[in-house]
Amino acid sequence: MSSSPPPVRALVFDVFGTVVDWRGSIIAEGRKLGRDKHLRVNWPAFADAWRAGYRPAMARVRSGELPWTTIDALHRKILDDLLGQFRIEGLSEQEVDHLNRAWHRLKPWRDARSGLRRLKTGYIIATLSNGNLALLTNMAKFSGLPWDCILSAELFHHYKPDPETYRGAARLLGLPEHEVMMVAAHKDDLFAAKACGLRTAFVPRPLEHGPKARLDVGPEPAFDLHARDFNDLADQLVAPR
Amino acid sequence: MSSSPPPVRALVFDVFGTVVDWRGSIIAEGRKLGRDKHLRVNWPAFADAWRAGYRPAMARVRSGELPWTTIDALHRKILDDLLGQFRIEGLSEQEVDHLNRAWHRLKPWRDARSGLRRLKTGYIIATLSNGNLALLTNMAKFSGLPWDCILSAELFHHYKPDPETYRGAARLLGLPEHEVMMVAAHKDDLFAAKACGLRTAFVPRPLEHGPKARLDVGPEPAFDLHARDFNDLADQLVAPR
Repeated sequence: MSSSPPPVRALVFDVFGTVVDWRGSIIAEGRKLGRDKHLRVNWPAFADAWRAGYRPAMARVRSGELPWTTIDALHRKILDDLLGQFRIEGLSEQEVDHLNRAWHRLKPWRDARSGLRRLKTGYIIATLSNGNLALLTNMAKFSGLPWDCILSAELFHHYKPDPETYRGAARLLGLPEHEVMMVAAHKDDLFAAKACGLRTAFVPRPLEHGPKARLDVGPEPAFDLHARDFNDLADQLVAPR
Repeated sequence: MSSSPPPVRALVFDVFGTVVDWRGSIIAEGRKLGRDKHLRVNWPAFADAWRAGYRPAMARVRSGELPWTTIDALHRKILDDLLGQFRIEGLSEQEVDHLNRAWHRLKPWRDARSGLRRLKTGYIIATLSNGNLALLTNMAKFSGLPWDCILSAELFHHYKPDPETYRGAARLLGLPEHEVMMVAAHKDDLFAAKACGLRTAFVPRPLEHGPKARLDVGPEPAFDLHARDFNDLADQLVAPR
């Protein structure tokens, strides 16, 4: 891949982990709740356990065991179990719902807003997330993410990495697959996008799972671009600052 | 209805005619094409004829006579007929496609951008248009319309005024119907939204069909709000300037 920008018209972004720091955000929400309600909980372990339930829950939808179920509803199923496991007691239904919607209030990585604003000057920028549309819309408003449009697995009733999501995004954007580039911190997401004909940009987020986790953040020759963060991606795709 | 704001969380907007001046924009695109290609065409009549084909074309989809077909494709079918009728000759496929995409480049009414920016501070603002998602996304980018998300009939495979569109918008926004307000310049759209439980705001656009057309722009007691334009709507829903 040369350094000249590829002929791409739209960038579609994975969100959880790639755009926003879900772990840091959930821990912060938990700690605030813990102070307010006098709870003693290991919030990093709680955040990791909540996220660990995510893939198995989606797998039940992807396999057909469950009918289409939104991430909000899957998060809530997992949360209801975790409240028992972590002995989080005395919350009203309204408080549990508010905690479940912590995923609507995830905070972007430091470079995300500025990088997206720059990328938006040259490309259509859209989410392509397993999060449901309301979650992604509320998050964008809460965190000031300047998407041109919100695309979600919910629109296709298929979760990534099912091919219907990548192909469906290109179809809704009115573009051939090779004019759409998937941006993600997760190699499996990018390999699945590539198999559908999308271009790929890898932006590692080495702290996604906390400072102790060791993630596979090495470069991968199969991907079109590698960037340190969204501003580096904008340097490569739009223009250096 | 008192003057206090209704408990609404999201505003969904009709687009063609309500947000953008399709007629003036199509006439301007036609005149530019006419100068470039030395065509003598009555462009106001051309614009009116193009738009006149729109409802019958959607009716064929709504009745099931045609399978789901996007507005881009319906516009193109109509355009192909009009090229003959108006003796518009000598255009390449690329030029015809560019003309068809004039609907992606419609210009907003003078108050639309500023009004939407103000409304966005208090509400989720989304399109709810029969235009396909790519058309609406490109238009927003071209014309600087600050939508929080793009909702389209295309996502439901039903055209307005089918109830699936209004109910589907509320479902995707994660809101009960009565927390969503439809904003439109067309009473039939608002009556259909109201029948699905949405709130309604009427913003007449007396010049939508040109200076000679006489439209029904009178107030209607069935609607929740009436506004002269989007800034008046923001005065009523957010705060006076």
